[in-house]
Amino acid sequence: MSFRLLAEDSGARRGALQTAHGTIRTPAFMPVGTQGSVKAVSPDELRQLGVEVVLGNTYHLALRPGALRIAELGGLHRFMAWDGAILTDSGGFQVFSLDHLVRVGEEGATFRSHLDGSQQDFTPESVMAVQRQLGSDIAMAFDEPVPWPSDTGRSRAAMERTHRWADRFLREPAGPGQLRFGIAQGGFDPSLRAESAQTLGVMAFDGFAVGGLSLGEPKPLTYELVALQTEQLPRDRPRYLMGVGTPLDLVEAVSRGIDLFDCVLPTRIARNGSVLTRAGRINLRNRRFAGDAGPLEDGCDCYACARFSRAYLRHLFMAGEILAHRLASIHNLRVLVGLVGELRDAIEAGRFHQVSARLREQWLAAPLP
Amino acid sequence: MSFRLLAEDSGARRGALQTAHGTIRTPAFMPVGTQGSVKAVSPDELRQLGVEVVLGNTYHLALRPGALRIAELGGLHRFMAWDGAILTDSGGFQVFSLDHLVRVGEEGATFRSHLDGSQQDFTPESVMAVQRQLGSDIAMAFDEPVPWPSDTGRSRAAMERTHRWADRFLREPAGPGQLRFGIAQGGFDPSLRAESAQTLGVMAFDGFAVGGLSLGEPKPLTYELVALQTEQLPRDRPRYLMGVGTPLDLVEAVSRGIDLFDCVLPTRIARNGSVLTRAGRINLRNRRFAGDAGPLEDGCDCYACARFSRAYLRHLFMAGEILAHRLASIHNLRVLVGLVGELRDAIEAGRFHQVSARLREQWLAAPLP
Repeated sequence: MSFRLLAEDSGARRGALQTAHGTIRTPAFMPVGTQGSVKAVSPDELRQLGVEVVLGNTYHLALRPGALRIAELGGLHRFMAWDGAILTDSGGFQVFSLDHLVRVGEEGATFRSHLDGSQQDFTPESVMAVQRQLGSDIAMAFDEPVPWPSDTGRSRAAMERTHRWADRFLREPAGPGQLRFGIAQGGFDPSLRAESAQTLGVMAFDGFAVGGLSLGEPKPLTYELVALQTEQLPRDRPRYLMGVGTPLDLVEAVSRGIDLFDCVLPTRIARNGSVLTRAGRINLRNRRFAGDAGPLEDGCDCYACARFSRAYLRHLFMAGEILAHRLASIHNLRVLVGLVGELRDAIEAGRFHQVSARLREQWLAAPLP
Repeated sequence: MSFRLLAEDSGARRGALQTAHGTIRTPAFMPVGTQGSVKAVSPDELRQLGVEVVLGNTYHLALRPGALRIAELGGLHRFMAWDGAILTDSGGFQVFSLDHLVRVGEEGATFRSHLDGSQQDFTPESVMAVQRQLGSDIAMAFDEPVPWPSDTGRSRAAMERTHRWADRFLREPAGPGQLRFGIAQGGFDPSLRAESAQTLGVMAFDGFAVGGLSLGEPKPLTYELVALQTEQLPRDRPRYLMGVGTPLDLVEAVSRGIDLFDCVLPTRIARNGSVLTRAGRINLRNRRFAGDAGPLEDGCDCYACARFSRAYLRHLFMAGEILAHRLASIHNLRVLVGLVGELRDAIEAGRFHQVSARLREQWLAAPLP
């Protein structure tokens, strides 16, 4: 068994997920390295931030530079010089985001590459093969999410197909030491969500994802559906909430038994000049930071805060200097990695209820615009 | 005296320039930090590369964020978190590049900011004041270069004004521990070049620059004019060839008694995907690197070469990932810093003639397109 559940406290879980590239202490936040690079950040900087696992995108890497190419170059770890763990998504989310540009059938999905117009076929089998070539530590099953809102008929059809695809996915060989996660769907219907978790839960996956959420539905519904699925999923395997989220989302999801997260938020907003602080999200382009000699956040131990002022960061953004993207990304990643670290410590210490209440209050008072 | 001449060999000089922020071993290459940042590279990475001095642009920093602002924030070193030496240029080159947008008189130059259209007046006095506020270790006198080609009349007038401005510049107070360099001009006329070096050479500067070259004139003429001026300049003070250059330029200039260089070449070409190798300048976007598992350059000790393949760098460039800019910049800076290091060692060892001949041959065989 690759996952050990070390402690539980008020619905939150502290665990250890063993992979071929180190043990991931959970709850864990996974920075997103869409195209084989966590945007603007080097692998050594990720290590320094305390990152243990990054996400790679099967869709993007399969189209460019190609999974075979990466395999020939020794696999994704070597390619991007990252010796920590890598989880690759299945491409399902990206493919179905193409909307009317994709044709879906029982066999899989057919679409045209946004890069060169070439026809691409993603099936449960091909997606496993691609992830085997990439050599990720955790491979995700091919799934079909539905947009918000979707009616029950569409949600059920996509869910049932996701289950059949999960079964086909598991019949394919994984790479050596490669773990495999199934993705629970069910749209925005509580009973479908429960059914999906139950159905997948009996399959031989090493872990499970809650997929297809945070697509525009109200937050309370997101949290309700997360709780519904974690209640049904096997206790002895890790749960990963895909594409979420904000600091507040992380607190709420960990409270509901989630162990893994990924989100582009910290690096995406960083490139627009936004950084996360206890006082909320601030945009460094604002004139009020022009003379601010303080760090992005008092007490933060990241490289950006240790060495540079808000005034300097603002100047870099105004001047179009790309060092700004790196420094702001490092800081934002540190905030999220630090937050899950705080949650881990709290669960271990049996203080999750108090700590999560404080963090919830802090981040509610500092809403992200 | 801030400069010690440690060795001479076949016209080349090995020296040590003491500044308020460390001793610069010369010959030295100065990466260009135009707007308070060597593009895409952090100060810690510069240190790791063996950089001892960077260049800051008075023109750019005076317009944004403003010299007073930087002074209020503790000076340029603290602002950009660089504790090595900083040389600031005088803005002369940038101002006169504005061509018909600048009005020049005996007092100085008047132009409109390219950022907000505000009127700006640069004079020998104001340029000294700005550099005092920035707190650079080496301040450059305000000068008037002329474009290639220029007739003798125009070249003489600009040269004589540059001399008068140098005199006015020196009457202003420098910052504590701040060194000051004059800039020799003279257009492309050998006798004017000799005259300018002689005239400035008797003034109380801590060092001298050869300015206004590499503006399109034939390379043999550049080298001839450099040699002419270094012959006339005081032997006991450092000489800085501004805005030059390529690896071959560095070898040629050191052979002619130059001690300091700056050039945007290594970082500018890096952002276009070009890197310097012994086999010449290569563009990583070329398809032939798509499967190349080797480093940018065998035997290079830079971070990019130590960790990543050409194939990965190519992928980053094709995918528009900005980590590419950082890694290629680091490599190109390492090549130039390594080259001057090799030249320093050769002068110390009394082997400059052989080593420079080998390097000249190498870089002649690997011309930059």
